[in-house]
Amino acid sequence: MFDGIMAEKITPRAQDFSQWYQDIVLQARLADYSPVKGCMVIRANGYSIWEKIQQDLDRRIKKSGASNYYFPMFIPESFLKKEAEHVEGFAPELAIVTHAGGKKLEEPLVVRPTSETIINSMFAKWIQSYRDLPLMINQWANVVRWEMRTRLFLRTTEFLWQEGHTCHATAEEAEAETRTMLGVYRDFAEEMLAMPVYFGLKSDNERFAGALRTYCIEGMMQDKKALQAGTSHNLSTNFAKAFETKFLDKDSTQKLVHQTSWGVSTRLIGGMIMTHSDDKGLVLPPRLARTHVVIVPVTPKPDTKAAVLEAARKLKAAIEADATVKALPYEIGVQVDDDDTKQAGWKFHEHELVGTPVRIEIGPRDLEKGTAVFTRRDVGQKEFIPMADLPAKIGGELAKMQKELLEKARAFRDANTTEVASYDEFKSKIEGGGFFVASWCGNSELEKKIKEETKATIRCIRLDDKFEPVRSGKPCFMTGEKSEKNVVAIFARAY
Amino acid sequence: MFDGIMAEKITPRAQDFSQWYQDIVLQARLADYSPVKGCMVIRANGYSIWEKIQQDLDRRIKKSGASNYYFPMFIPESFLKKEAEHVEGFAPELAIVTHAGGKKLEEPLVVRPTSETIINSMFAKWIQSYRDLPLMINQWANVVRWEMRTRLFLRTTEFLWQEGHTCHATAEEAEAETRTMLGVYRDFAEEMLAMPVYFGLKSDNERFAGALRTYCIEGMMQDKKALQAGTSHNLSTNFAKAFETKFLDKDSTQKLVHQTSWGVSTRLIGGMIMTHSDDKGLVLPPRLARTHVVIVPVTPKPDTKAAVLEAARKLKAAIEADATVKALPYEIGVQVDDDDTKQAGWKFHEHELVGTPVRIEIGPRDLEKGTAVFTRRDVGQKEFIPMADLPAKIGGELAKMQKELLEKARAFRDANTTEVASYDEFKSKIEGGGFFVASWCGNSELEKKIKEETKATIRCIRLDDKFEPVRSGKPCFMTGEKSEKNVVAIFARAY
Repeated sequence: MFDGIMAEKITPRAQDFSQWYQDIVLQARLADYSPVKGCMVIRANGYSIWEKIQQDLDRRIKKSGASNYYFPMFIPESFLKKEAEHVEGFAPELAIVTHAGGKKLEEPLVVRPTSETIINSMFAKWIQSYRDLPLMINQWANVVRWEMRTRLFLRTTEFLWQEGHTCHATAEEAEAETRTMLGVYRDFAEEMLAMPVYFGLKSDNERFAGALRTYCIEGMMQDKKALQAGTSHNLSTNFAKAFETKFLDKDSTQKLVHQTSWGVSTRLIGGMIMTHSDDKGLVLPPRLARTHVVIVPVTPKPDTKAAVLEAARKLKAAIEADATVKALPYEIGVQVDDDDTKQAGWKFHEHELVGTPVRIEIGPRDLEKGTAVFTRRDVGQKEFIPMADLPAKIGGELAKMQKELLEKARAFRDANTTEVASYDEFKSKIEGGGFFVASWCGNSELEKKIKEETKATIRCIRLDDKFEPVRSGKPCFMTGEKSEKNVVAIFARAY
Repeated sequence: MFDGIMAEKITPRAQDFSQWYQDIVLQARLADYSPVKGCMVIRANGYSIWEKIQQDLDRRIKKSGASNYYFPMFIPESFLKKEAEHVEGFAPELAIVTHAGGKKLEEPLVVRPTSETIINSMFAKWIQSYRDLPLMINQWANVVRWEMRTRLFLRTTEFLWQEGHTCHATAEEAEAETRTMLGVYRDFAEEMLAMPVYFGLKSDNERFAGALRTYCIEGMMQDKKALQAGTSHNLSTNFAKAFETKFLDKDSTQKLVHQTSWGVSTRLIGGMIMTHSDDKGLVLPPRLARTHVVIVPVTPKPDTKAAVLEAARKLKAAIEADATVKALPYEIGVQVDDDDTKQAGWKFHEHELVGTPVRIEIGPRDLEKGTAVFTRRDVGQKEFIPMADLPAKIGGELAKMQKELLEKARAFRDANTTEVASYDEFKSKIEGGGFFVASWCGNSELEKKIKEETKATIRCIRLDDKFEPVRSGKPCFMTGEKSEKNVVAIFARAY
C-alpha cells in the first residue's frame, strides 16, 4: 500500500520549532487535520505508536492491580455539578448533547472531559463493605475538552487516553496508590518513550479540579519548553462526599472511600516527537517502532537484480532468527523495501522521515564484497558491515539506540536546567528557555505574579526517592526568606 | 480484590430466557446498567472478554492488509446528509452536540453512529492516484445509536466496535474485499467464540443504509432466535460519489473509488453468552478466559492446611510449565483461590457463575491419595485424577472444550434448522422458533408481508464456498413459482 506522497521540505528546528513539529507530524503521516474544529485524525504511522504505548502501559497498569472497565461517555450534566471545584474547572470546555433520537433531552448530556463523576455513580452502587476495597479500575477511552487553540497530539478537542480510578479504605492507601502510579508513569516514559522526566508535585494553582494533591511527570522538549506528560491525583474524599461513595468498615461504621485518579494521553506522542526528532524527520525509539529495520536493495542493473533481492530476503530471515535480536524485549519488524516504482534515494529519504530505526542498503558491489551498508537513524553515519555480522549488530544497536536516545535527551535537559538564586536572575534567563530550579516558599499569589510577568509556571515541586517534597534549606528566591518549609521548585514555560 | 457479592439465584432458561440472560450478565459482573439511558458499564469480567476479542480479531484484520487509524467521533451534520439512504437510515438514532465551549455551535455535530462520512472526507484528501490504492483502514471506537429498547451488550445506545473502511480501484476488488472480511468474521466467530454462524447475503430490506450489498454472519441463540453477529458491506461508489473520492487511474482518467466497510461490536459478547451459558452461569470458551483454571484448596483442618496450600501452589506451577498447556495457542491463567474469608462451596459457586473453564479441588484426603478433583465447567462432572496427570489433562481438556462448545452449538443449531416447502408450513412452525430454510424468489413486498405476519425476517441468503448465492432449483415457498433465480433463504425471528 502506498500511503502518501513524496514529502516536502521540513522546516528546520532552528528556524521555526512549531512549524518543524507540524511538518514532522503531517509529512511522516502521523496525524492530519480533520474537518471538525480542533479534532485530529490519527493515521497508521501515528496510531501504531499509540498501540505500542497502550500495550506496554496496559501491562504495567494491570501489574499494579487495576482491571480494565468501560463507562459511558455521556454524563448527566447534574453529575458534573456535584463537585464544586470540578465543575468550575471543566465547565468552559464541555461539549453538550441536547438532542437525541429526534427529541430534545430532558437533561443535557455532557461528553466526558474525564470520568470521575460517572464512575463515582457506579462506585457508590458497587462498594458496600471494606471487603469491596481496594477497587482499582482503568479505562482506555476518548475524551473531549473544547480547546480554543489546538495542536496535533499536544492539545486536541478530542483525544485518546487511559484514566485510572481507584477507591481505598484509608487516606494513607490512597496517597500510596497516587505515588505508585506516578512511579509507573515515570518508568514508562523513560523506558518506552526514552523521555527523561522530572516527577514531582503540582502547586495548588496547577492541581486537578477536584483533587487534594496532583503529582506529575514533566519532560523537556528540544525548544527547552516543558511538557506535562502524565498526572496522578489524590482525590481524597472529594468525589466520595459528592456521590456518597461509602463503605461499612471493620469497626461497623460507615466511611467515605479515599480515591485516586491518574492518566496519560495521546499527548505523549507529541512529547516523544519533540524530544527526539531532527530536521530530517521522525526519530523513533525502537520500542515504539512497527518496522525496526528496512532493507533497501539497490538494483541499478537488471543482471544483478535477482541476486541482490535474494540477499536482501536472506538477510531479513537471518535478522529475524538472530539470538541477539530475539533477546530484545519486543518483536521486531524487518521490511525489504522492494517497491520497483520508487528509487533507492526516495526510499532513504522516506525511511528517515518516518523514523525507521535502522536502514540497510545492499547493492551489487556490496554483494561482491560480502558487506552491506548499515545506518542508524539517530546517528546517521553509514557503516560497511560484513553481511554475517549484521544480524547480531542490529540486535545490539537497537538496544543501544533505545538507551542512547534517553541519555542524549537527559544530557540536553540537564544542560538546560539552571539553578537560580533570585527572581532577577530568573527573569534575566527565562527568555533563553530551559528549566529553572529555585528555592520556593509556596505562596500562590507570588506564583501568579511570576506567571504574569514571565509566562513561566511551576512545573513541579521536586520529590525525593520516597516521593516526599525535597526541602531546599535555602531562602525563597522570591521573598529571600528562609524557612524549613521551603521546597525545591522547577519553573519553566510550558506547552 | 473482592469485586461483588454472593450471587442471587439465576432464573432458569426454561422459565424466562430473557431474565436468565440479564441475570447472567449482572450476576457474573460482566456489565451493569448506568445512570445514562440505554448506556451500559462494562465491568472487568466483561471487558476482559472484549480484550481477548480485540487482540485476536485485530491480528486477523492486520493480516488482511488493513492498518488501524483513529477518526474524530464528531461528524458535521451536513456530512451525514450527503448520502441520501445513509442519512435516512441513521437520522432517527442520532445524538447531537449543539453547544460546546460555552457557545452554541454554528453547525451541530453528530456523535458518530458509524464513520463512513467522516472517513470519506479524509479519503478524498488522501487519495489522488491509483498508487494510493488500495487504502485499507480499521478503527476501534465507540459509536452511538439512540435506541428505544436496549439490552445489555445486545443493543445499547453507546457500544464499542471495530469498523473497517477500504478503498479500491475496481468494483471487483471491492467485492472481493467484502467477501474476504465476511470469511474473516465467520472464522473468527467459530474459532474464538465457538459460535457457529451461517454466512450469507442480506436481502434488500435488510442491507446497510448506503450499501450496494450487505453480507452477514448469523448465529442461533439457545432460545432459537437469530443474532446478527457481524456485517460486511460493499458500498460501491455511493459514498465516493457523495464525497468526490476520486483517483487518477493508469489510463489518465479520474475515477470514483469502490469502497467497503465491515464491523463487529460488543454485541458479540451477548451472542457468546446466549450460545453457551447454562442455568448455573456463564460458560466461557477457553480462548476468551482470563483465568482458565482455578485451584480451590479445601482446608477444613488447621494441621493439614499448609500441606494442601503447598500442593495447590505446586500444581499451579506444574500446569504453567506443562508442554501440552504451552502448546495451546494462548497463554493460560491459573489461580489458586486461597481467600480465607470464603468457604470452598462459595468458591465453587462463584467460579461456575463467572465461567472459569476448569476447576480443581484439593483437600487433605486427596493429598493422601495423590489425586485431585477435576471439573470442566461445561461438562460439570467431577473426576478424580492423579496429581501427576493433571497438567497434561488440563492442556488437552481446554483444547477439547473449545472444540466441543462449537460442536454442541452447531448440533443445536442444526437440530433446530428446518426446511420448509410452503408458507403454511412455515407459519405452523415459526412459533416453535429456529431457523427455516426456504426457496425464495427475492420479492421485497412478500418479505415485508412475512415480517408483519410472523415477526420473522430473512436472516441471510445462503452462499456457496465461493460466496455466490446458492440457487435452490425449487419453487419459491411463497409464490410456488419455479425460477432459476430462486435462492436459498434462512428465515427466523431475531434479536
